Amino acid sequence: MSTTPLLERDTAHDLRELGQQLRVDSVRCSAAAKSGHPTSSMSAADLMAVLLARHLRYDFDDPAAPGNDHLIFSKGHASPLYYSMLLAAGAVTEEEFGTYRQEGSRLEGHPTPVLPWVDVATGSLGQGIAVGTGIALAGKELERAPYRVWVLCGDSELAEGSVWEAAEHAGHSRLDNLTVIVDVNRLGQRGPTRHQWNLDAYARRFGAFGWHVTEVDGHDVEAIDSAYAEASEHTGQPTVIIARTRKGRGVAAVEDKEGAHGKPLPDTEEAIAELGGRRSARVSVSPPASAPARPARPDAGHPPAGLWRPPGYRTGQSVATRTAFGEALAALGAARPETVVLDGEVGDSTRAQYFADAHPDRYFECYIAEQQMIATAVGMQARGWLPYAATFAAFLTRAYDFIRMAAVSRASIRLAGSHAGVAIGRDGPSQMALEDLAMLRAVHGSTVLYPCDANQAAWLTGAMADIAGVSYLRTSRGETPVIYEPGERFEIGGSRVLRSGPADQVTIVAAGVTVPEALAAADLLAADEVSVRVIDAYSVKPVDAVTLREAAEDTGRVLTVEDHWPEGGLGDAVLAALADPGRQGGPLAAGPLPAVRKLAVTAMPGSASPDEQLKLAGIDAESIAAAAADLVAGHPGVRP
Amino acid sequence: MSTTPLLERDTAHDLRELGQQLRVDSVRCSAAAKSGHPTSSMSAADLMAVLLARHLRYDFDDPAAPGNDHLIFSKGHASPLYYSMLLAAGAVTEEEFGTYRQEGSRLEGHPTPVLPWVDVATGSLGQGIAVGTGIALAGKELERAPYRVWVLCGDSELAEGSVWEAAEHAGHSRLDNLTVIVDVNRLGQRGPTRHQWNLDAYARRFGAFGWHVTEVDGHDVEAIDSAYAEASEHTGQPTVIIARTRKGRGVAAVEDKEGAHGKPLPDTEEAIAELGGRRSARVSVSPPASAPARPARPDAGHPPAGLWRPPGYRTGQSVATRTAFGEALAALGAARPETVVLDGEVGDSTRAQYFADAHPDRYFECYIAEQQMIATAVGMQARGWLPYAATFAAFLTRAYDFIRMAAVSRASIRLAGSHAGVAIGRDGPSQMALEDLAMLRAVHGSTVLYPCDANQAAWLTGAMADIAGVSYLRTSRGETPVIYEPGERFEIGGSRVLRSGPADQVTIVAAGVTVPEALAAADLLAADEVSVRVIDAYSVKPVDAVTLREAAEDTGRVLTVEDHWPEGGLGDAVLAALADPGRQGGPLAAGPLPAVRKLAVTAMPGSASPDEQLKLAGIDAESIAAAAADLVAGHPGVRP
Repeated sequence: MSTTPLLERDTAHDLRELGQQLRVDSVRCSAAAKSGHPTSSMSAADLMAVLLARHLRYDFDDPAAPGNDHLIFSKGHASPLYYSMLLAAGAVTEEEFGTYRQEGSRLEGHPTPVLPWVDVATGSLGQGIAVGTGIALAGKELERAPYRVWVLCGDSELAEGSVWEAAEHAGHSRLDNLTVIVDVNRLGQRGPTRHQWNLDAYARRFGAFGWHVTEVDGHDVEAIDSAYAEASEHTGQPTVIIARTRKGRGVAAVEDKEGAHGKPLPDTEEAIAELGGRRSARVSVSPPASAPARPARPDAGHPPAGLWRPPGYRTGQSVATRTAFGEALAALGAARPETVVLDGEVGDSTRAQYFADAHPDRYFECYIAEQQMIATAVGMQARGWLPYAATFAAFLTRAYDFIRMAAVSRASIRLAGSHAGVAIGRDGPSQMALEDLAMLRAVHGSTVLYPCDANQAAWLTGAMADIAGVSYLRTSRGETPVIYEPGERFEIGGSRVLRSGPADQVTIVAAGVTVPEALAAADLLAADEVSVRVIDAYSVKPVDAVTLREAAEDTGRVLTVEDHWPEGGLGDAVLAALADPGRQGGPLAAGPLPAVRKLAVTAMPGSASPDEQLKLAGIDAESIAAAAADLVAGHPGVRP
Repeated sequence: MSTTPLLERDTAHDLRELGQQLRVDSVRCSAAAKSGHPTSSMSAADLMAVLLARHLRYDFDDPAAPGNDHLIFSKGHASPLYYSMLLAAGAVTEEEFGTYRQEGSRLEGHPTPVLPWVDVATGSLGQGIAVGTGIALAGKELERAPYRVWVLCGDSELAEGSVWEAAEHAGHSRLDNLTVIVDVNRLGQRGPTRHQWNLDAYARRFGAFGWHVTEVDGHDVEAIDSAYAEASEHTGQPTVIIARTRKGRGVAAVEDKEGAHGKPLPDTEEAIAELGGRRSARVSVSPPASAPARPARPDAGHPPAGLWRPPGYRTGQSVATRTAFGEALAALGAARPETVVLDGEVGDSTRAQYFADAHPDRYFECYIAEQQMIATAVGMQARGWLPYAATFAAFLTRAYDFIRMAAVSRASIRLAGSHAGVAIGRDGPSQMALEDLAMLRAVHGSTVLYPCDANQAAWLTGAMADIAGVSYLRTSRGETPVIYEPGERFEIGGSRVLRSGPADQVTIVAAGVTVPEALAAADLLAADEVSVRVIDAYSVKPVDAVTLREAAEDTGRVLTVEDHWPEGGLGDAVLAALADPGRQGGPLAAGPLPAVRKLAVTAMPGSASPDEQLKLAGIDAESIAAAAADLVAGHPGVRP
């Protein structure tokens, strides 16, 4: 396979042959797996053949090389095509290629970073282009590196709003290191797409968002080659290449036919024969021309996080945890130059603004586009940066699919959600996160933190830098009393026992805004000679099962209290820990569980002051005290 | 206030005066509440004055009148302006107006349907335009009614991808009954918007998506009036009016100033004086000219759902629950003509296609735009239709913010998610919903159903028609054995005890695909002389606390098993029910809890066959049997 820069007659022939090889291999692996998307692969085979042989700059022996281009299959279901490219590049063997979609194989149904050449998992459409925009942004604005980002999109996925968030961000940021290739094969899963082969419809849309647009015949290798060359040379705008293709191209039984999506071809041998038989060309993919100006992993050789000092707050003060988050983030940015911060146009509220003021070059305004914000974080961490992304906690729900997929991508991203719960007061339910703990707990490998005071929030903000996977910090709008000493350390998975005595009759487990309420409730109960233990469960996931279990055994009764719906939050985390300590590493408990009662927000809130809201929701000090007294009276516990 | 159709000199003066009145009232109510968004209201005051006085067709005395126009504040934070309009229209009194943002007030921080004139809650940006598109679609394609939909958007929110999903759907559907007014006041919350006063940037984008575009000076009442008239007359396209405005217009201290977002004006009295003082004009808003061709509530007078007959499946067959869902939906569509079905371009997989085949006029292809799909459902139910929306369960995560807001909107929508869990097999984790139960349980007032066989799925599909709020049916890709009789009734909040005996040592609680595994586990255990109870907890929320409690008391040990992450799903629902039966209406339990162990998916899956996946996740029959035996051996229970 020639890799000469100029396209000669023989080269065009070779490229067409490579395209057929990728088709045959896509057909082969899907047939062996008895599943997969060969027809969606065949439409884009010529597009990828030309890219692989002539334009991609990538060292397949060193996927971590900082100068490598990035190739993202936003249409992740075309994984047969991607794996066929890996086979052609010599990155995987024929033997491994044969394991497609089998148990234990790295060649999963949709690409994931289990393969070292894959930056991010795709398969939820409209995400690859968004993550690619994040990587291109890192290359352009953080690293000033010459690598290019290539994204293969399907036409169906252009219906996703996230595509247009990406188009807006990339267009406005003039990301000329980004090329998006749209495989317009006219057919979605169920039938024809909205615009079918109306390439101009897509061209108008991308053009309006500030992109350089080229339309090509996606089966004309010379036209494709020219389009890529033009894209690489074009400056000041990202390029989209809108390619007219035919789904199932090359096999009459499926070509441009409805009902052939997502299944092996009806006759494998006949199809391979029709495509001209098996080939086994090896492509010498060009390595990157030069290393980038900055290392791809900006944390390499950097002093450890222990040198970071969080801002300190005097006990007795009242400070909002969001304020501590912002100040800690600004300090972290000074100590760790790989820190980058993204915000959804509410940095003045989340306090991410403090980082922007201190480190404007590493602050990215994502405007009100939460999906693109998360995608940018995922893309930047793929380049070795340390991203924090902040918005109102309620609006992280907008990006749940991106957060879910970040976990599939094995991405390490840090999220901060401010203005959680009814405690925000008058703005009403649209602005109140009441499901964020449930949403973030149900992310694989996630860490969920909910600090109650400024020193704790500051410490945890820094600690998140070293957490792998998706981590989440829930912050509060209003001021809360500082109860911990400046610089106090808080373990992930830990807790604080704030009140404890030998005669405790009930344990109150709280977090965030309910901690001061629980302490006040303890005072009220003490006046009635009811002794309570109070635990600050700032680490909601992993939760401190050992301390909770001990408290439950000591007191026999547990009351949880949270500013969240009853489902999936702190109460459920406590119940799960008490029910099954075996899961936490210890032996399965032999004794029965204690009585547990959950206090949470059960009615749809309206507008009211923060204090009124807590009272209406039954999670203020008086309500907690009443529920605790009720629990003591109604349940024998261990000290009847 | 004149409501003559032609704009005369005096009328223009009156309109300007009305605009000033709306500004003064916005300032007043925000000052009284000591919070709110007066400056975001002031920019749009002239736009809304002209709409209210001259173009809106609405009977404020009869908000349910089917011919009424619909007015949606997509920029819900401009609620002071909306409430000032209600005051001017005589819909609310000055006394109620003074309760803005106070405890118990209907005038919440962002509008909600607590007010009868509000169709849907807004406040999460980028949603009002999407719901408005759904209402316009109902007007155009279902009702053929003459009402118009007016949506007020901010400029900041145009960064949301959901706006472009709506623009695509409305443009392609040629919704000429929809007018979107964009209040381009240049300033977002944190600072300038991406495009500031570049009206052409917005015009190009909407134009590319097929909209009729008009640019106006948003403070020129005559130009606004002409633009509305043009929008109402224009056919074949939706219209967007892009209005250049000044945030805080009319008060020098805040006009076009940064840092004045979302707070009362610095000097209320001075501001009111600068605006020309208080006014108290009453606007006679024109009622709709005529009733629509069809009733707004198509279910009015319709026979009750009891007449519907679900499709039946013979026991012993194997049928996928998604297939039963699709067939039941088609049958329901015949019995209840108000049923409408939406799908995200995967109707062949979800089986919503069966409805499309039977009732093509009431099937809406939403393409791969899940946010718009949910918004359309919310919009159509606001018009009295009975919407079901289906896609892969995993991709409902894309629309979580819309689902959350549907609950704030008190909307009744029915969601169906197919291809749940690792049981889908080879496609890999991007396609597997493993957080959907947690996500949907944590929606206020939601119902979560997870059938294990076809007859149960069919019955529950029909039962959802009569559920208020957000309901969710989780269906499975693969076939499962039919174990219930055709036509068997399943209560919401119920369960089925499938195995039971006087000597049961452990209760296995399963749902969906784990039910057949649990039954097989029971057979394995019986061979070892361990007697187990098996419960099919098809109603995950509300869960059948009474039956679960009874089983727990009888057997002393409970094992839950689910195809879902451990957090927030069936296991947590069971734990919550056992821990706190008092919540379910009964008295608080006096005794301790049983031992509970949860089986769920704990490691990130890859590709494998469905059977391999269940085994790898430890939720197949053998794993269940082993865990049950372990629980019996390790815990004394009630029968040691």
